[in-house]
Amino acid sequence: MTKKLNRFNSYIYSSLILITVLSTLCNKVYGQSVNSKNPPNFVIIFADDLGYGDLSSYGHPTIKTPNLDLMASEGQKWTNFYVGASVCTPSRAALLTGRLPIRSGMTSNKVRVLFPNSVNGLPSSEVTLAEQLKKVGYGTACIGKWHLGHKEKYLPTKNGFDYYFGIPYSNDMDNIAKLKSKEEYMSFWQNRDNIKTENFNVPLMRNTEIIERPANQNTITNRYTEEAISYIKRNKNKPFLVYLAHNLPHIPLFASKEFLGTSARGIYGDVVQEIDHGIGQIISVLKEEGIADNTIVVFTSDNGPWLSFKTDGGSAGLLRAGKGMTWEGGMRVPGIFWSPAKIKPGLISDLGTTMDLFTTFSAMAGVPIPKDRVIDGIDLSATLFENLPSDRNDVFYYRGTDLFAMRVGDFKAHFITEGEYGMFGERELHDPPLLYNLSQDPSENYDIAENHPEILVEIKEAVKKHESKLVKGKDQLVDRD
Amino acid sequence: MTKKLNRFNSYIYSSLILITVLSTLCNKVYGQSVNSKNPPNFVIIFADDLGYGDLSSYGHPTIKTPNLDLMASEGQKWTNFYVGASVCTPSRAALLTGRLPIRSGMTSNKVRVLFPNSVNGLPSSEVTLAEQLKKVGYGTACIGKWHLGHKEKYLPTKNGFDYYFGIPYSNDMDNIAKLKSKEEYMSFWQNRDNIKTENFNVPLMRNTEIIERPANQNTITNRYTEEAISYIKRNKNKPFLVYLAHNLPHIPLFASKEFLGTSARGIYGDVVQEIDHGIGQIISVLKEEGIADNTIVVFTSDNGPWLSFKTDGGSAGLLRAGKGMTWEGGMRVPGIFWSPAKIKPGLISDLGTTMDLFTTFSAMAGVPIPKDRVIDGIDLSATLFENLPSDRNDVFYYRGTDLFAMRVGDFKAHFITEGEYGMFGERELHDPPLLYNLSQDPSENYDIAENHPEILVEIKEAVKKHESKLVKGKDQLVDRD
Repeated sequence: MTKKLNRFNSYIYSSLILITVLSTLCNKVYGQSVNSKNPPNFVIIFADDLGYGDLSSYGHPTIKTPNLDLMASEGQKWTNFYVGASVCTPSRAALLTGRLPIRSGMTSNKVRVLFPNSVNGLPSSEVTLAEQLKKVGYGTACIGKWHLGHKEKYLPTKNGFDYYFGIPYSNDMDNIAKLKSKEEYMSFWQNRDNIKTENFNVPLMRNTEIIERPANQNTITNRYTEEAISYIKRNKNKPFLVYLAHNLPHIPLFASKEFLGTSARGIYGDVVQEIDHGIGQIISVLKEEGIADNTIVVFTSDNGPWLSFKTDGGSAGLLRAGKGMTWEGGMRVPGIFWSPAKIKPGLISDLGTTMDLFTTFSAMAGVPIPKDRVIDGIDLSATLFENLPSDRNDVFYYRGTDLFAMRVGDFKAHFITEGEYGMFGERELHDPPLLYNLSQDPSENYDIAENHPEILVEIKEAVKKHESKLVKGKDQLVDRD
Repeated sequence: MTKKLNRFNSYIYSSLILITVLSTLCNKVYGQSVNSKNPPNFVIIFADDLGYGDLSSYGHPTIKTPNLDLMASEGQKWTNFYVGASVCTPSRAALLTGRLPIRSGMTSNKVRVLFPNSVNGLPSSEVTLAEQLKKVGYGTACIGKWHLGHKEKYLPTKNGFDYYFGIPYSNDMDNIAKLKSKEEYMSFWQNRDNIKTENFNVPLMRNTEIIERPANQNTITNRYTEEAISYIKRNKNKPFLVYLAHNLPHIPLFASKEFLGTSARGIYGDVVQEIDHGIGQIISVLKEEGIADNTIVVFTSDNGPWLSFKTDGGSAGLLRAGKGMTWEGGMRVPGIFWSPAKIKPGLISDLGTTMDLFTTFSAMAGVPIPKDRVIDGIDLSATLFENLPSDRNDVFYYRGTDLFAMRVGDFKAHFITEGEYGMFGERELHDPPLLYNLSQDPSENYDIAENHPEILVEIKEAVKKHESKLVKGKDQLVDRD
């Protein structure tokens, strides 16, 4: 009797295993997580210098972002989402290559970002997310700020994008005033009358042609939105990637007439609200075209707020410091994932980075990731689709080519800290490192190094492991005309 | 022809006025804004020392408050919502009387709050919200922390509440260690082994009887929730006011076994998540009993986070400073209003205060406000029901009996600032005052006094007007056994 029951149980058990294995297989082949038959569209919306605290859903009291807030509540709101570097050029390289910029050479200790007189850009040996997705027939558009090289051989169209429309670097560059000293710089920016679009002689390009110079920045946010929508409508019958990298709310701030003066937060709020409005329009179009269920929309920012510009810069919310720095305010940003039929709604406090988009979206599209190089991104699909824990357990905080800090699990050790971007702060070495429990102390107020030497040992080991295998790319930012 | 048309227009115009007047009258009598036929129930949930940044919907990365977040998205999330004082006793007096505590004498320069050896409490001449609502037959319950006098004549049951269940003052009082110096105090709190419920000999009362001493604080949050639910079920057939004033997350922090260790934020997060869970249970019961549509639930906090207690204290998010101080972090708190059939959903950045609950809820219940005294609360109904602009244009920031700062519209002038509560900071006088544009600079980083002397003049005028009519109540906190 007992034996019979056991045999019966064992039969049921085997059947259950079989069913599980089969359904897992079916899921892998036909399910939503990996689906090369009907690969999803991706829309990555990347704001510039927008801080962790600059959306209503991330706690801002007077900036109203109803479209992003709705995406956050219908989708996933990530609260420990990081960029690969705390300034523009390396952060963008990280997102598009899935690699720390130290590997591609897109970060430097001498020059922080690419400038109009820079001669290099993202090395052609790097594989971008666009190049990945093109392998399986995606349409790929880059709309907005590029900042990975503006010489022809470095433009988006040479990096896997079928289409480019945008300003190829920061909107504060090509200043016609040709400021020579720090004093001239400060005095220029303190006079609000100087903030007009004709004072910044930046080019607007379509593919490889300059179509407008100076780009009219008063209308640029809206034009980027329109370009994204137009591309989506033209390409709705095949899978697509739209990388919409707004030039704003980086200074100088410009909003269209429709938005100017609408936010209690002032011009910074007007700008963010115009971006939010455009995102609402994009979501509407995805729904109208019937492709929302097969599209994943991500919103994030390239680094924290540029605090030197006071109210013209954003807010990192409860996080410490901002752009250019390796405190949380410099590198932790909003991360919102939306897709009505795919993303399982939730508030996600697990770790993720912009580099993970490369790996995650490659997996979703069924494209293997390159095996001949280190990829720092990991696949976040299990978290996005099923709210399972993220596999990411660490974050590297580089400033230029130096590793300033590392996070392992809840804990972050600072080996070096330095003042604000552009503010010529002093570099400070910490031995023992500063140690913070970021889950309990997100504002990095309470150094607990003294009480947790064992955690410092663990983090130092992780750093050693990382550095022992690290091959630094040749500095691409330093050479200039 | 023109004359005829004019006469016709004038006829239409008169009719329109008549219709408007009639519909306004009907609205006043039968509409939802004032409805003495079917007055709404009120549930006020008041957290203790919970900061502006301590809910997910207000930007906290690791405290998860899904129930409050849902209330905020289904109802109104106020982002410029203030308390009447930045410490317990005066803040509670303000909420319940609708008056600045300087008027009732429930604030003092010598003693910050009531202590177990205090002999006074809220003067019987004060009219509480509970007394107001009792005039029209409401059932009234106070559950939780009282802190307006624990001698029998000052208890909730003597102040308009039919029922009381709770700890009559702060949960860190009656410390059995009888700490004598600041050093002893610091050393006690630094040792986590001291944080056990038996070390705080606080009484738990039902009505006027002590039923447990020391109150078992491990289960107190859940017991408060259960008491609130039980009261609601018993009183669902008449209008009711439940004033649920949790003792937590004031230190010492305790959570039930079910919640201990559940939050990445540590014990502080466990506590907030247990409160949030209880709020979800209350909402469910309101729905099950079919009274949700006629109930208004408000969530707020008595003051900002107690920063001296480091990770055992909360976070003010992007706001400056915390409990005890007159910077925004001390006095601006979360303010969530929920009522599925009444509150018009929205993100509200207009001004509101806890004192406005007195006036607003009196109006909704059809009870005239007392005419023989100054009431500082205003009626927020138009904002709550119709998203119309709030009539409130100012906020007074008192510390003890001194006016430290005043906000008029977007601008706040600080005349005096002082260090943290309990930290014996220096008092600093500012002439000219510090001036901040809170809509553009919520973190109070950029003093603009120099550029806006005209705004300082306006605020000083408003202060003068306020002070010229001010009658200070006799200090009720100073006398002790």
